[in-house]
Amino acid sequence: MDVRERIAALRREMERCGIDAYIVPSADHHQSEYVGGHFMARQYITGFTGSAGTAVITGDWAGLWTDGRYFIQAAQELEGSGITLFRSGEPGVDTPEEFLKKELPEGGTLGFDGRTTGVLEGKRYCELAEEKGGMADYGHDLVGRIWSGRPPLPKDKVFLLDEKYAGEPAGTKLKRVREKMAEVHADVHLLSSLDDIAWLLNIRGNDIAYCPLVLSYLLLFADHGVLYGDREKFPEQVLGHLGKENIRIRPYAQIYDDIRALPAGSTILLDASRVNYTLFRRIPEGVRTVEQENPEVRMKCIKNETEVSNMKRAHLKDAVAHTRFLYWMKKAAADAGTAPGTPLRDENGTVITEMTAAEKLEELRAMQEGYLGASFAPISAFAEHGAIVHYSATQESSLPLATGKMLLTDTGGHYLEGTTDITRTVALGDISRREKEDFTLTARAMLRLMDTVFLHGCSGANLDLSAREVFWKERVNFDHGTGHGVGYLLNVHEGPVNFRWREGAHPAPCLEENMVITDEPGIYIEGSHGVRLENVLLVRPDVTNGYGRFLHFEPLTFVPVDLDALLPEKMTEEERRILNDYHRTVRETLSVYLEGEEREWLREATRPV
Amino acid sequence: MDVRERIAALRREMERCGIDAYIVPSADHHQSEYVGGHFMARQYITGFTGSAGTAVITGDWAGLWTDGRYFIQAAQELEGSGITLFRSGEPGVDTPEEFLKKELPEGGTLGFDGRTTGVLEGKRYCELAEEKGGMADYGHDLVGRIWSGRPPLPKDKVFLLDEKYAGEPAGTKLKRVREKMAEVHADVHLLSSLDDIAWLLNIRGNDIAYCPLVLSYLLLFADHGVLYGDREKFPEQVLGHLGKENIRIRPYAQIYDDIRALPAGSTILLDASRVNYTLFRRIPEGVRTVEQENPEVRMKCIKNETEVSNMKRAHLKDAVAHTRFLYWMKKAAADAGTAPGTPLRDENGTVITEMTAAEKLEELRAMQEGYLGASFAPISAFAEHGAIVHYSATQESSLPLATGKMLLTDTGGHYLEGTTDITRTVALGDISRREKEDFTLTARAMLRLMDTVFLHGCSGANLDLSAREVFWKERVNFDHGTGHGVGYLLNVHEGPVNFRWREGAHPAPCLEENMVITDEPGIYIEGSHGVRLENVLLVRPDVTNGYGRFLHFEPLTFVPVDLDALLPEKMTEEERRILNDYHRTVRETLSVYLEGEEREWLREATRPV
Repeated sequence: MDVRERIAALRREMERCGIDAYIVPSADHHQSEYVGGHFMARQYITGFTGSAGTAVITGDWAGLWTDGRYFIQAAQELEGSGITLFRSGEPGVDTPEEFLKKELPEGGTLGFDGRTTGVLEGKRYCELAEEKGGMADYGHDLVGRIWSGRPPLPKDKVFLLDEKYAGEPAGTKLKRVREKMAEVHADVHLLSSLDDIAWLLNIRGNDIAYCPLVLSYLLLFADHGVLYGDREKFPEQVLGHLGKENIRIRPYAQIYDDIRALPAGSTILLDASRVNYTLFRRIPEGVRTVEQENPEVRMKCIKNETEVSNMKRAHLKDAVAHTRFLYWMKKAAADAGTAPGTPLRDENGTVITEMTAAEKLEELRAMQEGYLGASFAPISAFAEHGAIVHYSATQESSLPLATGKMLLTDTGGHYLEGTTDITRTVALGDISRREKEDFTLTARAMLRLMDTVFLHGCSGANLDLSAREVFWKERVNFDHGTGHGVGYLLNVHEGPVNFRWREGAHPAPCLEENMVITDEPGIYIEGSHGVRLENVLLVRPDVTNGYGRFLHFEPLTFVPVDLDALLPEKMTEEERRILNDYHRTVRETLSVYLEGEEREWLREATRPV
Repeated sequence: MDVRERIAALRREMERCGIDAYIVPSADHHQSEYVGGHFMARQYITGFTGSAGTAVITGDWAGLWTDGRYFIQAAQELEGSGITLFRSGEPGVDTPEEFLKKELPEGGTLGFDGRTTGVLEGKRYCELAEEKGGMADYGHDLVGRIWSGRPPLPKDKVFLLDEKYAGEPAGTKLKRVREKMAEVHADVHLLSSLDDIAWLLNIRGNDIAYCPLVLSYLLLFADHGVLYGDREKFPEQVLGHLGKENIRIRPYAQIYDDIRALPAGSTILLDASRVNYTLFRRIPEGVRTVEQENPEVRMKCIKNETEVSNMKRAHLKDAVAHTRFLYWMKKAAADAGTAPGTPLRDENGTVITEMTAAEKLEELRAMQEGYLGASFAPISAFAEHGAIVHYSATQESSLPLATGKMLLTDTGGHYLEGTTDITRTVALGDISRREKEDFTLTARAMLRLMDTVFLHGCSGANLDLSAREVFWKERVNFDHGTGHGVGYLLNVHEGPVNFRWREGAHPAPCLEENMVITDEPGIYIEGSHGVRLENVLLVRPDVTNGYGRFLHFEPLTFVPVDLDALLPEKMTEEERRILNDYHRTVRETLSVYLEGEEREWLREATRPV
């Protein structure tokens, strides 16, 4: 079936169910950042392969909404499908909800799969339909009905995260969570967010791209728990581990029936932002809900001492791999000579491209013990591609690297000892003055935030200025947060902590000792170049005195900042001191892991300025 | 009657009304920052003359709560009264509410005058009494019943603020407010906050110390308004002005009856944080309340162009007066010679004290045209008194000034052209290295915040770091906000805008063009010295480009920062540039208003460093 046929088949199903408009988002049943093939219904029904987008299909019309990252790709992929492309965020472009408010017929039925829809979103869809005198029907996965050859749910094995990595037994985590349940008199706690479940039970899997998680739900009671997942994926050792905590396995989809059977008069604790709409609606009327942030969210964002020392090891391994990568790039650039525009070649004389550069970095990481895989889709962006914040090289777009421009890589890995995330921008040969100025501005911002000292009680909203003020003084800005929390062998983007000056829906929490957060300012000059530099920071105790409890940051990332791209005369004395101190630590930390030319290069690359 | 007799008389009234515990706060009926003599019931009943405190009286016991500013004074003034002093904020000291929770007898009645109590506070008192199985009685001013010789309500005349000062006719302000009323379908808008009323109607008065306001309430309807105040205080011209807007006067206390008569089915707009509990409770049941921030709050904190240019003039006058004061101080210090500890003397050979220094500054201000009076209780704090943030010199405490220490003055004035607020700390003769270090740190903080450039959307919580980070780098802090909004011939402390890193009850609003806000970091070394420096800043438009709309600050205050106390070598090049630019502007701005020695001194005091 081609896309037109698929849509025709979907319309037959819609008619059968009396649905006038059907919404297909890009989501699994757990609000995951990345989704597996089984859940790519929006891709199946539209043919658009980008990671973000929402389709709406009516009886005689179909549309797809996606954001600026994908306008070109979506236009190409939708060609001939009869699907209208909506460029989200462009002036005058309705959102899907605004569109539906206008186009859903009076008294019509709006359909969606409530399992792929968040609670707030689902509620809004229902209100929208009611305002039209119609109704919402969230009970059908209509794409699933027509999807022949749908990829099955993943079958990868679940594994235990040993206590030497996790640092705290599942038993005491469960005890802490149950104390939080008791505080709000909850008899049961519903978990659907995969990272919260994995953290709580010290289990990991391989069900989600870039995230070592297990597709599952958990109902946790005061004295036992029910984990909804595919039993075949659980080795005996894991079952034994769960059994000891009185947690048994029931089939993945069984939760939708079981939750209906919760006894009236009981109280359920859940996080409406981390539960899908169908689950939420299946809670029986007689059950009281306590809606608040999952207790696991705050617990897991403060790393325990074992996690902290492991993360230091993971970042050290990652730094060795990344520094070797930088040396490799710099050597290829030097070998290419001084003429601008000369292609860079690898040891075999093959021209290096954005994609093969990323592969090289992945290869170097894979040589490190305990490496499990990339922690997110790697960004390897050369020259003007560096200006595209979420650039992802494809076979078609991948540029050959050449002298005279910069390469920006934003990559990370999962190790048993934790998750890394690092961005470096490097000059390949000589670059322009303007590029060096932008690089220097970005380096200053990253260094200043890294060096901040603050009183306990500060949030990322208080501290964001530390990075951003040098940008603002130049009347420039970057249109993304300065940093995000990082999970421990979980999601690389982990809430709730962040560096952002604009408050989001939830106020940023205060920074606590042992939180891990990125520091990644950048500048993006469309059609020309982009610079981003990113270190991962650990919140550490500083002096406590009569003024209060001070905290500071300790970098976990130890990879040189490219001095070839830097204008030291554009930095303050203090900024140079921070950089030189950082580079001294990088040199002292990594030297023993490198040899020969690599070691020699490291010394040069971390010289004081 | 002495205090013991007053309390005995109060207890007889309590018994008559069946009240077991009676609360007497330090408040008028309008949540004013300063209160007139008529409203000083807490002072009358306890004998404690400080500005902040709450008394609780039971049948056989009496207590007074006050904060750290007043511990010593309160202990002295309460001696022999039988009243127990509670040091608020000290470890283990209950708040009045915590105390009442424990001590109010089961089934007892808690009494207070709801007119002197905020809505939230009143609600909490009622809940507290109900939890004890008792009730709250907020209807009696029992202190008023026994208070012979109570000061009458003020009789000062109301005056119109001409449009050349106000910049906008009352008519268009009323129109804008009525549009906000219409948005929430309000038939009537209740105003009890005196600055909101004065701003809205372009009237001023002299009813509150340091605040040129008129004791009044306003009920604003779609086509008319009723201003509750003392008719005798309104000259014909003001009555005519109000009459044109269809606003009539009714007696001050009449509102308590009139609000009861609002028709059922109508909707009232009010700000629960700016209305007293009795007024709130008198709203009939059938009237719908819309509780939100008074629309006047956001309107008046953004100054119009007339107000802005007037405020510049007011600050210029104030700067001339203050600079002449600095010269006078510096000359007295120079005349005293180099031996530390030599008293400073005025032209008549009289030793200058904290109080006489403040009087001199007031005298110099009074020489400026359009000066109306001080905008708050002046702080004039010598040597170790500088470490007391809210120090207020009394005849007993007032220190003679002498060489070798610093004088901190935090003062301000009301002019027809607006309100000023300025803090300067000056070295009298040679001061210690440590004092200079602290002065320099404070100057750096003030200058850095003044020089901040930021994108529209920032709040004071985002920008506070700009001042505070140099303190935090040294592991010190100041335990107050970095700045507050300033009214235009209204309250010198005007919400909602501020510089604070800790979020208060309400999130800080984003900074808008033409907001006026202070920048006043400080450092306080108990028993030794204190430094605070304060400029008033105006938010101004900066570049608008593809990154967004940038804003910056323009100082309104133009008074030298004492170079005798500064260590330029402890400043960055950038900080010295900001200071030198500022001082050049001070010099260029003030020179024409000064002559002879004063002018000569200004040139020297603003030399580049």
